[in-house]
Amino acid sequence: MTVELISVGTEILLGNIVNTNAAFLSEKCAQLGLSLYYQTVVGDNPERLKGALEQALERSDVVILGGGLGPTQDDLTKEVAAQVFGRVLKEDAHTRQRIEGFFKLWGVKPEEITENNWKQALVPEGAIVVDNDNGTAPGLILEGNQRIAILLPGPPNELIPMFNQKIFPYLHKKQPETIVSEMIKICGLGESKVESMISDLIEAQTNPTVATYAKTGEVHLRVTAKAGDEAEARKLMKPLIRELKVRFGNKIYTTEEQITLEEAVIALMKEGGMSLTTVESCTGGLFTGRLVNVQGASEVIKQGFITYSNKSKRKLVGVKKLTLKQFGAVSQKTAKEMARGAMLVTGSDVAVAITGLAGPDGGTEEKPVGLVYIAVAIQDDVKVQEYHFTGNRAKIRESAVVAGLTQLRMGILEHITL
Amino acid sequence: MTVELISVGTEILLGNIVNTNAAFLSEKCAQLGLSLYYQTVVGDNPERLKGALEQALERSDVVILGGGLGPTQDDLTKEVAAQVFGRVLKEDAHTRQRIEGFFKLWGVKPEEITENNWKQALVPEGAIVVDNDNGTAPGLILEGNQRIAILLPGPPNELIPMFNQKIFPYLHKKQPETIVSEMIKICGLGESKVESMISDLIEAQTNPTVATYAKTGEVHLRVTAKAGDEAEARKLMKPLIRELKVRFGNKIYTTEEQITLEEAVIALMKEGGMSLTTVESCTGGLFTGRLVNVQGASEVIKQGFITYSNKSKRKLVGVKKLTLKQFGAVSQKTAKEMARGAMLVTGSDVAVAITGLAGPDGGTEEKPVGLVYIAVAIQDDVKVQEYHFTGNRAKIRESAVVAGLTQLRMGILEHITL
Repeated sequence: MTVELISVGTEILLGNIVNTNAAFLSEKCAQLGLSLYYQTVVGDNPERLKGALEQALERSDVVILGGGLGPTQDDLTKEVAAQVFGRVLKEDAHTRQRIEGFFKLWGVKPEEITENNWKQALVPEGAIVVDNDNGTAPGLILEGNQRIAILLPGPPNELIPMFNQKIFPYLHKKQPETIVSEMIKICGLGESKVESMISDLIEAQTNPTVATYAKTGEVHLRVTAKAGDEAEARKLMKPLIRELKVRFGNKIYTTEEQITLEEAVIALMKEGGMSLTTVESCTGGLFTGRLVNVQGASEVIKQGFITYSNKSKRKLVGVKKLTLKQFGAVSQKTAKEMARGAMLVTGSDVAVAITGLAGPDGGTEEKPVGLVYIAVAIQDDVKVQEYHFTGNRAKIRESAVVAGLTQLRMGILEHITL
Repeated sequence: MTVELISVGTEILLGNIVNTNAAFLSEKCAQLGLSLYYQTVVGDNPERLKGALEQALERSDVVILGGGLGPTQDDLTKEVAAQVFGRVLKEDAHTRQRIEGFFKLWGVKPEEITENNWKQALVPEGAIVVDNDNGTAPGLILEGNQRIAILLPGPPNELIPMFNQKIFPYLHKKQPETIVSEMIKICGLGESKVESMISDLIEAQTNPTVATYAKTGEVHLRVTAKAGDEAEARKLMKPLIRELKVRFGNKIYTTEEQITLEEAVIALMKEGGMSLTTVESCTGGLFTGRLVNVQGASEVIKQGFITYSNKSKRKLVGVKKLTLKQFGAVSQKTAKEMARGAMLVTGSDVAVAITGLAGPDGGTEEKPVGLVYIAVAIQDDVKVQEYHFTGNRAKIRESAVVAGLTQLRMGILEHITL
């Protein structure tokens, strides 16, 4: 079954808001196993909306429209959909009652309700009315000519619960096939490297399929299978997933959709009962900030130092004056001393130190912008790696954060294996 | 002149990522005075992409495509666009050289570069090649039949700087009417508050217009005027801008498009010759990390402490054991002692301390999730504010970062005025 999305709203076309509804609805449709090939955004303009809806109904079984159901003159989605389906609008007594109920709840007297609000009680003849528990405009389902149009209110706090509670089960019943997908997340390898390592699998694929998603410093692989039921779909995926695990080994940090790299790292350290201290220069807190986004990170991270100046590198974590003078702040030796010093000062089991040149100024031929040293100290063992990142200041710093997480993870894994 | 957007990427159709590029490009097109009536998203499928591009070129003067320019087999935007414009693909020596340069910088030997990367050096004959300073795939401009297609790389950290630096000026020249806009950036007031303060101006507007853009903890107002030339447009805007300045006063942190809140804060501190130390608990480095994103931040920020555990609050910045016991880590008193302690330890002029409950666990009726205390110490003066933020862990932490910047800014302004 195919589905497509039409988001209605001039505010999206002006860039005033980000279309998060489309991402939400798309993910849900993927979960339902619906094939979604198009998302369209049009403004509050009846001709263009009509054109978009007609085109969508020609090429897809289901069209989900978000927005344009409110009480203002700009809200035209229902009127246009009714016209396309050849239905007249009639007042729905149940919806009128619900609207009255909302206003009562908000402390508005019946005589104070402005006339335009009753527009929301008009529904196309024969439409399924979907009650809105979080606002006055109901959702609507129009069925006809083997096509379905689903009209949802635009505000995410109305659209999301309505979809989850009422539209998801409705669509689930209509879907004959079961689709199951699994995510394999890889760190420490670039997108083109990953792609070249599985090009034979991608070329040969039919069912299941594998798709790559590049993130900064990470690559995610989604394996998807279609079958009669879930067990069969999982069985279809199994050999491919096993093969991917063989090829990528411990570069795979999780096979769970929701787990992030920082969560995987924190989980690993918790398992090993390890405490962590961070010492950041060029990343200036972003590395620790990312780790702290993990709920329960406090079991692992006790403190961190942001040693931005040379003086603070000396005073807070005991980098030697001579080291800074001879090798500079961006050097293997400084990174090592930062990590070692942080461990000594705090008594942590593990320390990560990051020092580099994020630019745009300050680069030399010998030490160009993008040069970053990361040291991971685990007990007596300190390992430093040199990186060369590209991009603007923000990108270099983000790359350094992910490299730090990856290097920390590999360090712990090695340590655990030893 | 009309423009429309096509975002290319199955990951958008699967809901794996939110289409922030579309919001960015739409806002920029509005700023350029271009009329944007459609946004479309298609997957990495040549037939559907071709259909979408042909339809877009029929109804719009300019089509901006984002995504699908990378080295993988899925990346097909360039191939499809070349076909639609009837051009063959030829290797561009300059681009090949740049790709080689990137890999050299990344420490990859020429023989290690996988073959698929050279695909990125192929460009449609007669296309304008737009260098990518943050990645290997260049942007491309195709002109023909009084239509323009602009192909941009999908990653936002490549697309955004390329658009700002190279595509914006290109489109600006093509635009017959002069559109001038100015940005007024406000911190410390919510969106609905800002909107209610200017509802009379919005209702009465024709030329110039004012539009609001809500960001986390900030509201941006864009004032736009159309006229025969720039001087005339600026003259039209002047009274409205003056009025907005009167209404929002020192809540306006900049009237320059490119200036961020952290840049405004760093500039203010540089002006006052002030040095800063940070002490972060719930934000875990994000506050300092954001300030360090400002080029030249090292003149102001010397160091920071991430005092995530109670012990580190005591050991690193001297919060009293009794304070933690009596009032808890998330309290006015702890925030004050963190800020004061950091100033004492480091000898900085200014210190900012942030402590709060980011959740999702750990909240109580008395101290709910979202409760954050921020202390700003300037010499002998320490001021604490209490905040109640909503949203998930990441959102609460981001809100705390912006509140910290806003409070620091107001503190410095007050101090300077005194």
